[in-house]
Amino acid sequence: MEAVRMAFYFGYGRQSAAQQGCSVLDSAFIRYFSLMFPDYTGNDVFEDKPFNIEITVDHDDCESYPNEDSSERYHLSVSAGQAALNAETVWGALRGLETFSQLVYQDDFGSYFVNKTEIDDFPSFQFRGILLDTSRHYLPVKDILKTLDAMAYSKFNVFHWHIVDDPSFPYQSQTFPDLSSKGAFHPMTHIYTQSDVRRVISHARLWGIRVVPEFDSPGHTKSWGKGQPDLLTPCYSGSTPSGAFGPVNPVLPSTYQFMASLFKEVSSVFPDSYVHLGGDEVDFSCWSSNPDVRAFMQKMGFGVDFTKLEAFYMENIVNITSALNKTVIVWQDVFDYHERIPKDTVLHIWKGIPASYKAELSRMTKAGMRVLLAAPWYINHISYGQDWRDYYNVKPLNFSGTEEQKKLVIGGEVCMWGEYVDATNLSPRLWPRASAAAERLWSDEKQTSSVGKAFPRLQDFRCKLVRRGIRAEPLYVGHCKHEYQGV
Amino acid sequence: MEAVRMAFYFGYGRQSAAQQGCSVLDSAFIRYFSLMFPDYTGNDVFEDKPFNIEITVDHDDCESYPNEDSSERYHLSVSAGQAALNAETVWGALRGLETFSQLVYQDDFGSYFVNKTEIDDFPSFQFRGILLDTSRHYLPVKDILKTLDAMAYSKFNVFHWHIVDDPSFPYQSQTFPDLSSKGAFHPMTHIYTQSDVRRVISHARLWGIRVVPEFDSPGHTKSWGKGQPDLLTPCYSGSTPSGAFGPVNPVLPSTYQFMASLFKEVSSVFPDSYVHLGGDEVDFSCWSSNPDVRAFMQKMGFGVDFTKLEAFYMENIVNITSALNKTVIVWQDVFDYHERIPKDTVLHIWKGIPASYKAELSRMTKAGMRVLLAAPWYINHISYGQDWRDYYNVKPLNFSGTEEQKKLVIGGEVCMWGEYVDATNLSPRLWPRASAAAERLWSDEKQTSSVGKAFPRLQDFRCKLVRRGIRAEPLYVGHCKHEYQGV
Repeated sequence: MEAVRMAFYFGYGRQSAAQQGCSVLDSAFIRYFSLMFPDYTGNDVFEDKPFNIEITVDHDDCESYPNEDSSERYHLSVSAGQAALNAETVWGALRGLETFSQLVYQDDFGSYFVNKTEIDDFPSFQFRGILLDTSRHYLPVKDILKTLDAMAYSKFNVFHWHIVDDPSFPYQSQTFPDLSSKGAFHPMTHIYTQSDVRRVISHARLWGIRVVPEFDSPGHTKSWGKGQPDLLTPCYSGSTPSGAFGPVNPVLPSTYQFMASLFKEVSSVFPDSYVHLGGDEVDFSCWSSNPDVRAFMQKMGFGVDFTKLEAFYMENIVNITSALNKTVIVWQDVFDYHERIPKDTVLHIWKGIPASYKAELSRMTKAGMRVLLAAPWYINHISYGQDWRDYYNVKPLNFSGTEEQKKLVIGGEVCMWGEYVDATNLSPRLWPRASAAAERLWSDEKQTSSVGKAFPRLQDFRCKLVRRGIRAEPLYVGHCKHEYQGV
Repeated sequence: MEAVRMAFYFGYGRQSAAQQGCSVLDSAFIRYFSLMFPDYTGNDVFEDKPFNIEITVDHDDCESYPNEDSSERYHLSVSAGQAALNAETVWGALRGLETFSQLVYQDDFGSYFVNKTEIDDFPSFQFRGILLDTSRHYLPVKDILKTLDAMAYSKFNVFHWHIVDDPSFPYQSQTFPDLSSKGAFHPMTHIYTQSDVRRVISHARLWGIRVVPEFDSPGHTKSWGKGQPDLLTPCYSGSTPSGAFGPVNPVLPSTYQFMASLFKEVSSVFPDSYVHLGGDEVDFSCWSSNPDVRAFMQKMGFGVDFTKLEAFYMENIVNITSALNKTVIVWQDVFDYHERIPKDTVLHIWKGIPASYKAELSRMTKAGMRVLLAAPWYINHISYGQDWRDYYNVKPLNFSGTEEQKKLVIGGEVCMWGEYVDATNLSPRLWPRASAAAERLWSDEKQTSSVGKAFPRLQDFRCKLVRRGIRAEPLYVGHCKHEYQGV
């Protein structure tokens, strides 16, 4: 055991490909110093000999963005007076810094300690995401940034930004400014400007978090219609338009021109190689009421099978985004009606709660598709008591299938849908419940099979979150040494 | 409709028994000015003619505490350029100020308006309480004060402070300081000092809120035992003490001496005429294992009926507090085993969720007892969706009984038990769900029978709470003009 009191230094190893000036690590050193020593005033006396942690990375990826292939493996070695952190990438180094920060503890007299240890660590799953829904309620940028901070504390690495949906369109498009000026809850106060989006992406990058935007269509687009005339299908009541609108109109060439322009913008604004195209819950009643749509069906030989029309639409959209070099994620619905789905598409499993998602995992991986599991982690659903246990007990690979099939599970995602969630209750609803899923997605399943053993660890981690200013709710009766200080 | 822009004055009517210098109203004027005009900077230009609200009360009860008999009735008349608020007491005037503040609204250009109106208003129930549990988790004083603010916005008038329980004893007693120094989660940081308690009581008073403390015994007292030797019953395993302790030891004279001293202190610290003595969920297994308890049972002729021992204990405690001129509230359990309960005792109904509490209301009022309804408002219980509707739909008088029986229902209480609640999640879990119960307890049932009509009103009120800095969660998809600004 080694006493550490304030005299603490980060440094780059001589062999490190990244050196001082590396934006990701330089800023991480500053952040982690504050996180480890929250009561540091700058006037503390250095009572003990200094402690040095030396970081060495193989690649100078300091100015890049994390991506689906980024290694997050790190090796951490803590000995007397020093620690060595080695990683292939700066993203791995970030994960190692997080681990190190959680190893530092304080005794009752205020001295800091870290135990000697040797850690070789890497994630079980490459994609460990959180979905925030900024359409059903607007989330101020600062709440998104704070969520990114807390995500890094739990080693989440993907922010799935479900940015628009039926109720509102807060994304301020450069190409189509009317989408937000007419489709947001408020055109000035309830939008994400280009500068807001850049801020989120850049904040996420510094934590090694990817930002995957979702522009869900053809359903879930009511708010789009307000600022983009002729985009949505006019619903008919008998032979006359009813005044209501349905999903995106798949029969007009203008629809695809619009989508091509929008996704061209989205692709350049969001640097991640993934984009989420949605494709869930398309209601056919409006399409089938519309004579132009019916005529198109006939012309295309689709008969009365609207899934063929939906497939036609999605295929066009997928082609648009593929031409922009984006890998596509879609909700699982698309797989069900679409045979010609590109093989590198990721299927997002959200159905089959609480149990039948295992059958979905089997079925889709058997077809050779990559999958992302969300179904058991719809964390917006709440119940009384310790439901984090359910999130912890999920075994993403415990389904019937070959080893090859299991490799197609790229990871999992905690979804915080926004029907009942905004800035007032987001944090306590997310944390520490999402952290239970995070451990499942990062850690070796064999070493983390016991909910009972996880409980005190999660309780302790929750107090760490609270100490870091995250409004993480309690798991059960008890207290933290430092209770939440905000009101 | 009358434009009001900042040039706004509170004044006392010439006939008012209270005049300038009245602590309750003077401070209310300052608070309500900020609440009504949150963006007032002191530099605003008065564009319109001034608006005056004149307050007249019949009694100068400015320095007193609200009590069970306090009238909260008020009459509010708003006309061109002025309003008149009349009430019997300052507490009624506070309720009227709250109503007035909610009538003020702002247009998109920042001008303030209040519509002409005439309101005669009074509560349906005299006791409209919220229970906070500061034993299962410690709640910092500032969170309690903030809750009191929000209570006043919903016209709650009793803070039931469930201050101690099994997990911790945060009340710092003058007479028995070991109770908190040994029984709190932490003897310095997780306690309520005498000054803290005074601050809570004085803050509550200025909002017209009573503070009713609960010192629950003989069960729920594990934390008491740490600082008060011989208070709890030693449990036996066969013929030897097991090392565990059960409920308060009812056979030792020292127990009653201790309780007399403690409640003497409590009675002087808490000015309210009510005190809550608990009396719920007493486990008999430890008592029955203890040879001294068994011997006492035999001596008293109780046989093996431990409810008689429990009744004996409660009777002693009730006598102690009655001698201190306190009206007693006990949990309904006490009624079930105790025949000789004093007639002015209030029974607190917590069992029978979701429906059978009606039978309990019938049974207890039939015996001539006053009752307080909590069972349908255990708001710590959560479920997905709009459960506020259940709280709203409760009809406290909809039970089988005479008019005389119905008069014995003094009110209701929203209980926020602390197993899963602390400062991180208290506010969004309480608000605005508790406000649904508040309307039920204040307003005429006939005029507030429709949940559908209540929905937009409650949504609007929730945005008012958010605007006032209360972290009140959303009821459903949508937005507030001013979203929550904290993080």
